[in-house]
Amino acid sequence: MQFTLLHKDASTGGRWGRISTSHGAFDTPVFMPVGTQGSVKAISPEELKEMGIKVILCNAYHLYLRPGYRIIEKLGGLHSFMNWKGAVITDSGGYQIFSISPLQKVDEEGVKFKSHLDGSSHFLTPEEVLKIQLALGADIIMVLDECSPYPVTHLQAEKALERTLNWAKRTKIAWPEDKNKGLFGIVQGGVFKDLRKRCVEELVKLDFDGYALGGLSVGEPFSLRREMIEFTTSSLPSSRPRYLMGVGTPEELLEDISLGIDMFDCALPTRIARNGTVFTKRGQLTIRNAAYKEDPGPLDPECDCYTCKNYSRGYLRHLIWAREILGMRLTSYHNLYFLARLVKEAAGAIKKDKFEKFKNEFMRSYKL
Amino acid sequence: MQFTLLHKDASTGGRWGRISTSHGAFDTPVFMPVGTQGSVKAISPEELKEMGIKVILCNAYHLYLRPGYRIIEKLGGLHSFMNWKGAVITDSGGYQIFSISPLQKVDEEGVKFKSHLDGSSHFLTPEEVLKIQLALGADIIMVLDECSPYPVTHLQAEKALERTLNWAKRTKIAWPEDKNKGLFGIVQGGVFKDLRKRCVEELVKLDFDGYALGGLSVGEPFSLRREMIEFTTSSLPSSRPRYLMGVGTPEELLEDISLGIDMFDCALPTRIARNGTVFTKRGQLTIRNAAYKEDPGPLDPECDCYTCKNYSRGYLRHLIWAREILGMRLTSYHNLYFLARLVKEAAGAIKKDKFEKFKNEFMRSYKL
Repeated sequence: MQFTLLHKDASTGGRWGRISTSHGAFDTPVFMPVGTQGSVKAISPEELKEMGIKVILCNAYHLYLRPGYRIIEKLGGLHSFMNWKGAVITDSGGYQIFSISPLQKVDEEGVKFKSHLDGSSHFLTPEEVLKIQLALGADIIMVLDECSPYPVTHLQAEKALERTLNWAKRTKIAWPEDKNKGLFGIVQGGVFKDLRKRCVEELVKLDFDGYALGGLSVGEPFSLRREMIEFTTSSLPSSRPRYLMGVGTPEELLEDISLGIDMFDCALPTRIARNGTVFTKRGQLTIRNAAYKEDPGPLDPECDCYTCKNYSRGYLRHLIWAREILGMRLTSYHNLYFLARLVKEAAGAIKKDKFEKFKNEFMRSYKL
Repeated sequence: MQFTLLHKDASTGGRWGRISTSHGAFDTPVFMPVGTQGSVKAISPEELKEMGIKVILCNAYHLYLRPGYRIIEKLGGLHSFMNWKGAVITDSGGYQIFSISPLQKVDEEGVKFKSHLDGSSHFLTPEEVLKIQLALGADIIMVLDECSPYPVTHLQAEKALERTLNWAKRTKIAWPEDKNKGLFGIVQGGVFKDLRKRCVEELVKLDFDGYALGGLSVGEPFSLRREMIEFTTSSLPSSRPRYLMGVGTPEELLEDISLGIDMFDCALPTRIARNGTVFTKRGQLTIRNAAYKEDPGPLDPECDCYTCKNYSRGYLRHLIWAREILGMRLTSYHNLYFLARLVKEAAGAIKKDKFEKFKNEFMRSYKL
């Protein structure tokens, strides 16, 4: 895996870059659709390609529990399993273990947890989490981390941070140094600058291929989140990509791109789509509303995606109310296309040193 | 609407024909996927086209209740509403009113029923049912009929038949004689030959563009069903298409084609697909079974559909267990493709006077 920083925006922290993997290259900033269980919900691989999407994220936690990583390995790894020819990044499962597993117990060695599916007990070490992701065949792999909730005390955040650092070291030792793949460290430290600083310093010494910002967007105030991102990205080496996990609304993407973030993933765009909420240049639109009953217009008149070119708001409203799968397909397609186009336009604006202007114009229209 | 009988099989009742509509022509025998609520469940119009499907069925009852036919009319009719460029046949809603409406009361004038969605009361006459289908923009329209259950007494079946005939006459009077569209009568009469005979005679006098066989596959024994179909098709004019409503397994299709049926529709192929049951040349396969956990092979090794060319049984099993929409898309695609190919091959065999052989060979392999 190779990251090339191609251009830095003149007046913001915005960066245009490119990541090359053995499953193709993609430009940053990038939004990576989430294929939690080995499928980007409701969308086919060909449709992702059609939208210009070249990298997706899959969840090691979910795939470890079902169908099991050995099955995926036997079936040729995630790319072959899913019929996806682009790049795949897998998360370590740390976030899921600490958020959706009904019970977890963590010690220096690793983390014990129960499956949210059947209550079965599992114990994973950072080395095993690496092994799982390697078996899945991911192009970019995340170290196992301990994600702190919000609010959290300094002491608690420090303990989680120390464990995260210790696990990062062990993962790096176990790492096979496969040049075709990338290993990312995860910056923790809650909302405490001294802890974030220490975490960055220690991780950078280990020289990861990229750095993720973990433990953010977990309920902290917007200003604190912004402060933490700005502080963290400014201390990270510019030669490595920065990945903000779990972020995915248009306004957050643009805000965080301006703070120097390169990579994003989020399940929200497809989740809200299935419920009938879509992004448009004029803000979010809830297609269930009675106002759209007889509306012959597209979801977003300024969008040229398959959904907007072929279907009316009236039809989409009907499909969503009638719980038709096609409705969820079409709204999911639109939302992913919208974000793919947004990050592409953001990169274009950064190239021309006009990101600030682009962001402000987008937000003016989006917040109407 | 125009039907041309192109060839009759030498040794069975099998017929190869062609129906032309203002939304394109299609060959018979034909299987029409069901778009109950204005969408063939989980499948896009482009995918239907890709499979060679040129005609679908939509349910007037469902669309009348939601979103309402006036909305569809305002949005340009069903073709425009659904982004479907092929032909559309709508059923009259008779079957739904008598099967899924929680309460119905029928008299000479029409039928009173409650919506299965919200319990609201509705009253529809045959003329209104025609008007609704015209407003929906269907290419082929069905008269309102009264569908008898099974078992039913001769007297009950006779009463339903008389009402059906009376409604057929009224519908024919109200029919605008639009040459671009076709109006089909529905043969009722339960499992009584004298009633079926009388119904056919009366309907043929009215000279419909095609004839549907109603009130079958409602629980009667297989031999009785076969007898009724054979008896009815033999008394229908060969110059008109015969449509057997609600039939859709491979074995039934081939059986009924051999009895002279030209058109079929059924929700079963996509319904069982969403639950993980698929058709293969070697019979039905339940992909949920543990046996397929690590199976790298396609659903059906003898199938060349998109699903079979790109996805393993192991992956599809995982998607269905994980309730992923993509799993339902891929299995639905396969089942519809399977039937589209089956009727195409059936037509090919009829052309060569080899339908009997084709059917026997298919069944030998299918029943293995």
